[in-house]
Amino acid sequence: MNANQLQVYLEEKRGVIELALADLLDRGEGIPSRLREAMAYSLLGGGKRIRPIIALCACRAAGGLEAPALCAACALEMIHCYSLIHDDLPAMDDDDLRRGRPSLHRAFDEGTAILAGDALLTLAFEVVARDRSLSAARAREIIAELSAAAGDRGMVGGQQADLDAEGGEISREELARIHSRKTGALITAAAVTGAIAGGGEKELVGMMRAYGGEIGLAFQIKDDLLDVEGNEKALGKAVGQDRRGGKATYPAVWGIEESREELKRAVVRAEAALEGLGEEAEPLRMIARFIARRES
Amino acid sequence: MNANQLQVYLEEKRGVIELALADLLDRGEGIPSRLREAMAYSLLGGGKRIRPIIALCACRAAGGLEAPALCAACALEMIHCYSLIHDDLPAMDDDDLRRGRPSLHRAFDEGTAILAGDALLTLAFEVVARDRSLSAARAREIIAELSAAAGDRGMVGGQQADLDAEGGEISREELARIHSRKTGALITAAAVTGAIAGGGEKELVGMMRAYGGEIGLAFQIKDDLLDVEGNEKALGKAVGQDRRGGKATYPAVWGIEESREELKRAVVRAEAALEGLGEEAEPLRMIARFIARRES
Repeated sequence: MNANQLQVYLEEKRGVIELALADLLDRGEGIPSRLREAMAYSLLGGGKRIRPIIALCACRAAGGLEAPALCAACALEMIHCYSLIHDDLPAMDDDDLRRGRPSLHRAFDEGTAILAGDALLTLAFEVVARDRSLSAARAREIIAELSAAAGDRGMVGGQQADLDAEGGEISREELARIHSRKTGALITAAAVTGAIAGGGEKELVGMMRAYGGEIGLAFQIKDDLLDVEGNEKALGKAVGQDRRGGKATYPAVWGIEESREELKRAVVRAEAALEGLGEEAEPLRMIARFIARRES
Repeated sequence: MNANQLQVYLEEKRGVIELALADLLDRGEGIPSRLREAMAYSLLGGGKRIRPIIALCACRAAGGLEAPALCAACALEMIHCYSLIHDDLPAMDDDDLRRGRPSLHRAFDEGTAILAGDALLTLAFEVVARDRSLSAARAREIIAELSAAAGDRGMVGGQQADLDAEGGEISREELARIHSRKTGALITAAAVTGAIAGGGEKELVGMMRAYGGEIGLAFQIKDDLLDVEGNEKALGKAVGQDRRGGKATYPAVWGIEESREELKRAVVRAEAALEGLGEEAEPLRMIARFIARRES
């Protein structure tokens, strides 16, 4: 698969995810229209959909078909989306722009943004619990992984640690601890839950956990580098935000050159985690390289 | 069971719940200390624990023992607690006082309050998913019920509808629709998930759904009446808040006298929903009467 073919592949998967997300949001009556519009504004407002795509690819690596992972994939995107909504709030990172448009609390209001985030997080667990293509045992295991990755020891804990560290000096170890939770945990959960949905054995799930950890790290380093070097238009948000906000980033703590080197090493380690797997893991290998190369 | 015996009974159950909550929060390393303290401040900071107690009683009505419902009961309290934290935020109801103490964003800060709420909501699903005293099928069913009750068509939807209605005139139907979601859905889920945990058959689960709907209504009417007539010290929060905030309440829409009458009727309907059940449903009957009589 060359770079062009990967683009086509990712575009196709993105289409599958976006159809499924729209379908899961469209559940008829009973939701206040302002809340429904706010949820749709954020959830259907673009994005790379990299977490759900990783879940689909991990499911394929485990079993063959991607379909059993579709609801879990959408749940991952809902959790990611809720975290962006809450992180953008004035009491947190106070960002006015997201994906080239006003952030949710700017487009609607703060109260609605808090509630839309809450609703998306809750819906994530509901769609997995109600997914009849999964056995009860796998649904439960996926919910346990998602909630651990999203909660106080995962993403939420990472965001709190990030807020706590703001403006102060931090060590490389502390930086790694913040980001492995804030970004790494959910990306790891994408690979792991996809493998569980696909019926992967314990060994494969373990390989996916290792792979996920490395691409999560690669993703974060690249994100930080793009904030320093990126193109505002391609990113759809302002660059230089991290530095101005006193955020703990890899370029700030490691320097730009060493961050680039560590990014390359993380991709190599991600590919090494897939050793022994064949063709079926090729999309996961391509994604690892894509993450390091992306411009947005 | 007379009123004194019920007090003792509720006190005892409250103790069981509070021990279990403290135990579930205390999961060792990996949680930023400020986040852990904020979660404990809210979750272990008192409260009637009426939702988890209903779940335990419904479990007993279904099967005999209460133990299988303990994690689901704690999950209900976590969801209730997260909803109070987020509802108290300046962008929502802007309340400075909760259970006689500063609300969480006043005691800590807004960012931490948003995250602590997020973490408690997430933890609720994790504890049910990891509860090994439940079969995978029951765990999944309980998670589906909890998420539906908490989400955009349940509690979050009700809070949004309440915000949307603020200050305007609303009809009795609209009032009922707001509160059946905002308060009723989670109380109903308490009765339903308790019955599921106890292995209750479809018919019993249906009875619990009807019972829960009525006591949810009774609970809300009583809450609104207490805001008009209650004792600030017993309540641990300021009275008259609803009227000042232009909130949609039963006394405002129905009048005080008629609200009291409807409260009594809801309790009668709740007891009627338990018809055919024997001794094992006695605590549920007592709780229905207690809800109408409580002073806080």
